[in-house]
Amino acid sequence: MIGLGLIGGSLLRAAAGKRTVWGATLSEADAGAARADGFDCGTDLDAALRRAAERDALIVLAVPLTALDETLHHVAEQAPECLLTDVTSVKGPVLRAVRRWAPDTRFVGGHPMAGKAESGWSAGTAGLFDGAAWVVGVEPGTDLGDWAEVAALALEAGAHVVPAGAAAHDEAVARVSHLPHLLAAVLSAVAAEGGPLAAALAAGSYADGTRVAGSRPALVRAMTEGNREALLPVLDDALGRLGAARGSLASTGGLAVTINAGHEGKQTFAQAREAQRTGVRIDLTAPDAVEALAALGERGGRITALTDELRTATGEVS
Amino acid sequence: MIGLGLIGGSLLRAAAGKRTVWGATLSEADAGAARADGFDCGTDLDAALRRAAERDALIVLAVPLTALDETLHHVAEQAPECLLTDVTSVKGPVLRAVRRWAPDTRFVGGHPMAGKAESGWSAGTAGLFDGAAWVVGVEPGTDLGDWAEVAALALEAGAHVVPAGAAAHDEAVARVSHLPHLLAAVLSAVAAEGGPLAAALAAGSYADGTRVAGSRPALVRAMTEGNREALLPVLDDALGRLGAARGSLASTGGLAVTINAGHEGKQTFAQAREAQRTGVRIDLTAPDAVEALAALGERGGRITALTDELRTATGEVS
Repeated sequence: MIGLGLIGGSLLRAAAGKRTVWGATLSEADAGAARADGFDCGTDLDAALRRAAERDALIVLAVPLTALDETLHHVAEQAPECLLTDVTSVKGPVLRAVRRWAPDTRFVGGHPMAGKAESGWSAGTAGLFDGAAWVVGVEPGTDLGDWAEVAALALEAGAHVVPAGAAAHDEAVARVSHLPHLLAAVLSAVAAEGGPLAAALAAGSYADGTRVAGSRPALVRAMTEGNREALLPVLDDALGRLGAARGSLASTGGLAVTINAGHEGKQTFAQAREAQRTGVRIDLTAPDAVEALAALGERGGRITALTDELRTATGEVS
Repeated sequence: MIGLGLIGGSLLRAAAGKRTVWGATLSEADAGAARADGFDCGTDLDAALRRAAERDALIVLAVPLTALDETLHHVAEQAPECLLTDVTSVKGPVLRAVRRWAPDTRFVGGHPMAGKAESGWSAGTAGLFDGAAWVVGVEPGTDLGDWAEVAALALEAGAHVVPAGAAAHDEAVARVSHLPHLLAAVLSAVAAEGGPLAAALAAGSYADGTRVAGSRPALVRAMTEGNREALLPVLDDALGRLGAARGSLASTGGLAVTINAGHEGKQTFAQAREAQRTGVRIDLTAPDAVEALAALGERGGRITALTDELRTATGEVS
């Protein structure tokens, strides 16, 4: 485990006992706290990576996106052919960085959809991923033996696995995670212009709509700026819809199109989550298995178990 | 009480026992349910209004904004000189409608900042207004004897009173209530475009940001469309900020200005709510009392009691 913050620290705890784990971080505070909790952790990245290379271990990069290139240089030097995954919130930029800086690693990207406001080793818990979605990347040419090893770690941690290509992942999180953060920031700033009277009258819709504007700005910047390419067209979609609402309110005075579309969207997602699910079974050794996994993810499906020595994935889809 | 839905029904329950109350509504279902609960209610608006005129009662209009003009015609015919208040979510349009259709009533506008998703008599509770802000309108020339009688009803119901002019109220709620509903609708619609994969990956920021998009579209339309004049410049402010974020992301790749402004706005409101408060006392018979009340509201202050036979208002401000 390279990086022992909230995500890396939680995953190290969740995997300990099920497999041999060790970690390294440049943060002396996190390394010290992890050691004090009984984990085999230090601040020497290269030593941890050499040990991974010797044992052909799965390396998890749990560092911020801004530290990724530098960390990949260490990986390329110390463990150039290891199986490698990550836990960052964008997948396309990470895939490109790995192909550039550590091209011989067997890389399968990952993104656990879990988090909380606090950060650092001390904020982590072994249960952080219970019931969460964990995207495990499928690209044309992905080795599904490698894929299954990464998916197995996510399942061990208590998550279910959503297979998705980097582009599909990045577009989806732009819509359901990064745009919400930007709209919350805009709403919070516009509300604040209303001064103390607006503050006195702010109630539920303000509180809900601005909750994530309380997140640490550095974290929000890292994830939104890091997903620039996928976020721009999604921002344009939001601007177009908000501009259309403005135009309609100014001309006819009506907001039905905007408000009805929002209400329908909410119902669509609620139905998707509540829909009856049926079991699926994918033979990971079949020639079209990569396409089958990606299609499962696009349909909202999930993998919940790996059997047959990681050669078969089973799950559900509605 | 004219109208026995969520707000009217709750206020009738809250005021019963403290004063003589009766109500009327065009909804036979609500009138029947109120009678079954032991309240003096019916479907004959004119009879209820004549009784108000005979006893010089305070009339509360708790009808939707779309039914206001029609209801005011009844008031002007049956109880043209009564003290009148309302509970609708915009104050400027109501003030103009009253001046046009029932100009001889002694009107003081009101807006309790309380609600829930359900509607109708059966959704109401006597405790709905406990701890809520209740705007009671102050305009140049407002008779503060009338104002105090309306404020006393809000205090009786468990709310605290925020004095504000119609324009200041409408701008504030555009920022902290109506814009949140429109941004939630836009977010919900943009997210839904992401299909089942986006639904599978939607977590906390999506759920918080779209919660009010689940509200009944007719209610959301009534309040946002009803506040058109104040909402348009607030929408422009939001569009400008979101467009600036888009431009910055496309050019420099940075979102610091947007995200930092949102974080600071959140802190500003939190500080306003947590600030140390000091007592205030306003002599409602003083010549500048209307201005003093409006200024108190603009500073985020509130009235919490009326003493001295409604001639003195006391409260707090930070």
